[in-house]
Amino acid sequence: MRPRLLIANANTTAGITELCAAAARRAASPGTEIVAATPRFGPAVIGTRAENAIAAHGLLDLLAEHAGAVDGVLLAVSHDTALDAARQLLPCPVVGMTEAACLIALTQGARFGLITFGGVEMYRELLTRYGFAPRLAGLAGVPATPEQVLADPAGVAALVQRAIGSLVEGGAEAIVLGGAAMAGMAERLAAPVPLLDGIACGVKLLEALCGLGLPKPMAGSHAAPRGRESCGLSPALAALLKG
Amino acid sequence: MRPRLLIANANTTAGITELCAAAARRAASPGTEIVAATPRFGPAVIGTRAENAIAAHGLLDLLAEHAGAVDGVLLAVSHDTALDAARQLLPCPVVGMTEAACLIALTQGARFGLITFGGVEMYRELLTRYGFAPRLAGLAGVPATPEQVLADPAGVAALVQRAIGSLVEGGAEAIVLGGAAMAGMAERLAAPVPLLDGIACGVKLLEALCGLGLPKPMAGSHAAPRGRESCGLSPALAALLKG
Amino acid sequence: MRPRLLIANANTTAGITELCAAAARRAASPGTEIVAATPRFGPAVIGTRAENAIAAHGLLDLLAEHAGAVDGVLLAVSHDTALDAARQLLPCPVVGMTEAACLIALTQGARFGLITFGGVEMYRELLTRYGFAPRLAGLAGVPATPEQVLADPAGVAALVQRAIGSLVEGGAEAIVLGGAAMAGMAERLAAPVPLLDGIACGVKLLEALCGLGLPKPMAGSHAAPRGRESCGLSPALAALLKG
Amino acid sequence: MRPRLLIANANTTAGITELCAAAARRAASPGTEIVAATPRFGPAVIGTRAENAIAAHGLLDLLAEHAGAVDGVLLAVSHDTALDAARQLLPCPVVGMTEAACLIALTQGARFGLITFGGVEMYRELLTRYGFAPRLAGLAGVPATPEQVLADPAGVAALVQRAIGSLVEGGAEAIVLGGAAMAGMAERLAAPVPLLDGIACGVKLLEALCGLGLPKPMAGSHAAPRGRESCGLSPALAALLKG
Amino acid sequence: MRPRLLIANANTTAGITELCAAAARRAASPGTEIVAATPRFGPAVIGTRAENAIAAHGLLDLLAEHAGAVDGVLLAVSHDTALDAARQLLPCPVVGMTEAACLIALTQGARFGLITFGGVEMYRELLTRYGFAPRLAGLAGVPATPEQVLADPAGVAALVQRAIGSLVEGGAEAIVLGGAAMAGMAERLAAPVPLLDGIACGVKLLEALCGLGLPKPMAGSHAAPRGRESCGLSPALAALLKG
Amino acid sequence: MRPRLLIANANTTAGITELCAAAARRAASPGTEIVAATPRFGPAVIGTRAENAIAAHGLLDLLAEHAGAVDGVLLAVSHDTALDAARQLLPCPVVGMTEAACLIALTQGARFGLITFGGVEMYRELLTRYGFAPRLAGLAGVPATPEQVLADPAGVAALVQRAIGSLVEGGAEAIVLGGAAMAGMAERLAAPVPLLDGIACGVKLLEALCGLGLPKPMAGSHAAPRGRESCGLSPALAALLKG
Repeated sequence: MRPRLLIANANTTAGITELCAAAARRAASPGTEIVAATPRFGPAVIGTRAENAIAAHGLLDLLAEHAGAVDGVLLAVSHDTALDAARQLLPCPVVGMTEAACLIALTQGARFGLITFGGVEMYRELLTRYGFAPRLAGLAGVPATPEQVLADPAGVAALVQRAIGSLVEGGAEAIVLGGAAMAGMAERLAAPVPLLDGIACGVKLLEALCGLGLPKPMAGSHAAPRGRESCGLSPALAALLKG
Repeated sequence: MRPRLLIANANTTAGITELCAAAARRAASPGTEIVAATPRFGPAVIGTRAENAIAAHGLLDLLAEHAGAVDGVLLAVSHDTALDAARQLLPCPVVGMTEAACLIALTQGARFGLITFGGVEMYRELLTRYGFAPRLAGLAGVPATPEQVLADPAGVAALVQRAIGSLVEGGAEAIVLGGAAMAGMAERLAAPVPLLDGIACGVKLLEALCGLGLPKPMAGSHAAPRGRESCGLSPALAALLKG
Repeated sequence: MRPRLLIANANTTAGITELCAAAARRAASPGTEIVAATPRFGPAVIGTRAENAIAAHGLLDLLAEHAGAVDGVLLAVSHDTALDAARQLLPCPVVGMTEAACLIALTQGARFGLITFGGVEMYRELLTRYGFAPRLAGLAGVPATPEQVLADPAGVAALVQRAIGSLVEGGAEAIVLGGAAMAGMAERLAAPVPLLDGIACGVKLLEALCGLGLPKPMAGSHAAPRGRESCGLSPALAALLKG
Repeated sequence: MRPRLLIANANTTAGITELCAAAARRAASPGTEIVAATPRFGPAVIGTRAENAIAAHGLLDLLAEHAGAVDGVLLAVSHDTALDAARQLLPCPVVGMTEAACLIALTQGARFGLITFGGVEMYRELLTRYGFAPRLAGLAGVPATPEQVLADPAGVAALVQRAIGSLVEGGAEAIVLGGAAMAGMAERLAAPVPLLDGIACGVKLLEALCGLGLPKPMAGSHAAPRGRESCGLSPALAALLKG
Repeated sequence: MRPRLLIANANTTAGITELCAAAARRAASPGTEIVAATPRFGPAVIGTRAENAIAAHGLLDLLAEHAGAVDGVLLAVSHDTALDAARQLLPCPVVGMTEAACLIALTQGARFGLITFGGVEMYRELLTRYGFAPRLAGLAGVPATPEQVLADPAGVAALVQRAIGSLVEGGAEAIVLGGAAMAGMAERLAAPVPLLDGIACGVKLLEALCGLGLPKPMAGSHAAPRGRESCGLSPALAALLKG
Repeated sequence: MRPRLLIANANTTAGITELCAAAARRAASPGTEIVAATPRFGPAVIGTRAENAIAAHGLLDLLAEHAGAVDGVLLAVSHDTALDAARQLLPCPVVGMTEAACLIALTQGARFGLITFGGVEMYRELLTRYGFAPRLAGLAGVPATPEQVLADPAGVAALVQRAIGSLVEGGAEAIVLGGAAMAGMAERLAAPVPLLDGIACGVKLLEALCGLGLPKPMAGSHAAPRGRESCGLSPALAALLKG
């Protein structure tokens, strides 16, 4: 099997899509094909609740264009925007990059931590919704913007390094690096526990899921939609809802 | 104070908007003004995860048109679609109809139940996300469609009546009736515990919030967005993200 | 409807009752009547577990005098003393001032904090019992007595201000000010998130509940007592237990 | 050491006090002295929330009479009425009969069940408050009154027997028999798992605590009250609050 | 990379080891090498708590023989016996077959169920320990022994089929088949949701982990032992503890 | 009744067994007989996950020698190694020293803390597994080895004293001293809340359990094994599994 995996950004900044696609290609097994795509509309970068909600539509609109043409989808956005909706909508496996890193983290130690840029509240909710709260040692929000990451990578890496130290102190035995901007930073960091990159973890997990060949659920809240009416959506998305 | 409240549907079926607006007017105090609105695009009825995710954009698009012109917003959709995003985006109080009914239920007894049409999984997640799981006695999904409610109201009411019985048996001391289609059914039902209608609870809660006059948060994940870029969104929505 | 609301203190210090009644009148809608009452016996101020347990009797003894003559009851005591017992006993809605502030807090942000004077353990238990623990960002106990509040309001306000800062740092997006002594302090405080006063929240919530006109439960643990025998209680309280 | 243990009823039915005292004497080690007492005022039998709240005062009033004269106190009431308040107030160990049976149950198997007469909601809350919910397999409320127990012991025992079966089926590996009326029933019952009587467990646990000779806490919410003012309480109770 | 994976049984029945190895070979990607091994001592089949505790030693004794010679280890025992100990002890990734199936289940739907032969209590504890309880829809214990599976596969499959039905009814959107004896049964079963086999899931997850090449933790409770003394253990195991 | 209690070490350092036996004799009631024993094989001291898993076998091997000859067993190891397995295997009550101290702690205050030497993660898991997490105020790992305790008792006691202070600050109303090395330290420590020694608590709890005379469970996961086959185990242990 030579799976074709879609790296789907949920914001409209094509540069981030490219960064994630490159990381995905580095992580992919020989024979895995990586394609990448960016939504037609939505927020430039998802930083708040409203943007995350709006981006869900842009992402599903994008996925509808690729439905049936890919063997798996990795949501290349640290909020795992619209993960459950995408999973329901598509006929193939879908994983979120933060979800994937957390699932791998669960195999590395007792409890894990997560580092991101900015506020942590939405990540706390995301991990709680996944049910991972009992295994969460802590969340650290590094006070830096993506712009600062580009302007002063060493300075920001020092902040991340400090966050690693305090999470390990607090019992983290693996650490999820949340956000695309974290990806390039790993080689600047030293850690006594595994650092988990969502894109790499997501690609490997998708390869595993493609290998398992599980059937699409026909019951429950992840069964594909059928006969659902809508208006004002793209033909591809409306067609998927119709079933 | 004479608050102006927006009853905002999240699906595109104007008839449901009208039903909810009428219920809201019955519940409103003298002096409260009720306006109602329906999104420009999105699913006709929200019944699955994908539709709920898509509807979030349609709803926020709609709310952006009314931002600043209303004193409070009630999400007239039993999934409380995009509640946290709407709350962050708007300068006025926002409540969801299921959220409101649950908050009132918490003042009526020890644990409460919820009845809806169809599957209950998304409601279980919603209530868990709100943190209400410790007070939840049970969820009951009545196997009926909105169409059946219209065609055979007495037959469906009998099914709901049975669900009430089994939830009370399971310890529910108040029962939330989830979904607009439930609204008209209350007079056909007998229950030894309070039955809570989301529209009525939402209107009263919004009146209370308007009366309190709390300031908009300036910190945290519900502070208004500022300087957020986007593309392909309506001018009103893009402007709100810009701040 | 012109509801008559009882502000019921649970300790025997009439001055606190007056303070709370005044705050309730400021919060009440036009047409809402506020009456206030103080128990005949019990602790002067509730500061410990034993006092809280004893005060429950004094409070219910007091409520029995007013049963049937008021449309709603607000427990004007930050421990919400005997809330569930009062709710079971009376034919009208009953809310606790801390319960009310927490319910409103749930509509303001993701997680909330609570500030009180002295130890926080009893409040942690109270909020856990209500099921609010998943939404609690933190509890702060300001080391000051009610006497110090009167003697040095500015100094104590500075301590409260510091507690606000640390709760917001810890993720609180709304803050409940626990205790009557906190009430007058709000104008001395600056906060980037809503500060919630239990008396104001309680009055508005009771007005909402009176407006909803929900029936008294006839089943479950909040149904009115019937045929319960007792000795040594006031005639009014004994009569309520008899049903 | 020859401990003197007080069996303290929380309702005013002296016959129940006698039953519990007799059961305590059967369970006590040689050398343990059992004394028993009944409150001066309060509900005849605690069956509802309001009665439980009122009984707290009667119980603490009673305990104040014995403070300093006994080495340990067993609350002989299945609701463990005012347990934390009594524990704070008295200089000696205090345990509740249901608490004691649950603590012993935790040493007998993975999860345990509880059987009582009437509604189970207050017991669910009690066990949740104790933190035992993760170890609770189920609660069973046998539909019988204490009067029926006396009138038809065999018939009621058959109902209890059925409840045992369904709890074991649900995973209970030990079963707490809640309520004094259960006590005499044990010999009529057959169970494949240990049946735990609160009076016997409480007496043995108190003997253990007396043997350990732990100091009274001087910090936290269980430190003895000091300098607390009150009015209208018995001299002994007021004196304990004064410290 | 061509990983060499050890399928490690924790009981001493070599026939089960062979069954699991064959299943692993069917699931493995081309290039993955599967080796299998059986402990020298311990229970024939793990069916109780005591056997599971004893088997931990036999398993670690076995793993010590292979430490350094394999790239990953799959515990081929549905209790995931000594998973955390093995993970700490070995320099390579270790996963348990039930753990692996559950991790994959988390990517398939909202909540999942688990079916096993015999009692479910130990599995409930295992999944709770992993932190998966919030995502667990239910556990079903099919009343059949491994012997019955061999003697009457169709009859037992009918029981499993019924369990699938009741778990799906209870909200399971994916189902873990627990135990080696379940493995061959999948083709006899029909299910509207994915059925997850622990051996297949474990092999794919190990391939993913080997591909990620994460470093061994040097801090926390999963860091390799160093300088630990022992007596009476096999030279290989004692040497690993010495570090 | 004159119970004979076995103090069973789970590591192979006889000196620790002796220390624990001496502490048990000091705590025992007149008439209680204390015997002590050390496993034939296993780790010298249990400090890591792998050692704890291996020690389970050594401990059960040891207990099998004493099965039927003692009235109760106290696991004299702070990890309560193989507690559930031992409880299933033996015909008499079994308690773990940390379990016992925690159970007593639950009767002393609202929430308790635990102090140990080294890392706390395994203790956090243990207490979570017992279901005590809701009552846990905090865990403190004092950075000292057993060797340092012997070399510099006053210095280490100062560290423990500091840990007591910070746990009390964090809300601990009782403190469990975890580990045999803690035992002798109590007289060097001052605390405003009870300090609980696992050996003393375990002996008193076992005396209580022996006094209750509860039957061995015949159903559930703690029923004695029957007909279980094994190889390579000691005759006594193999015989117990056979039943």
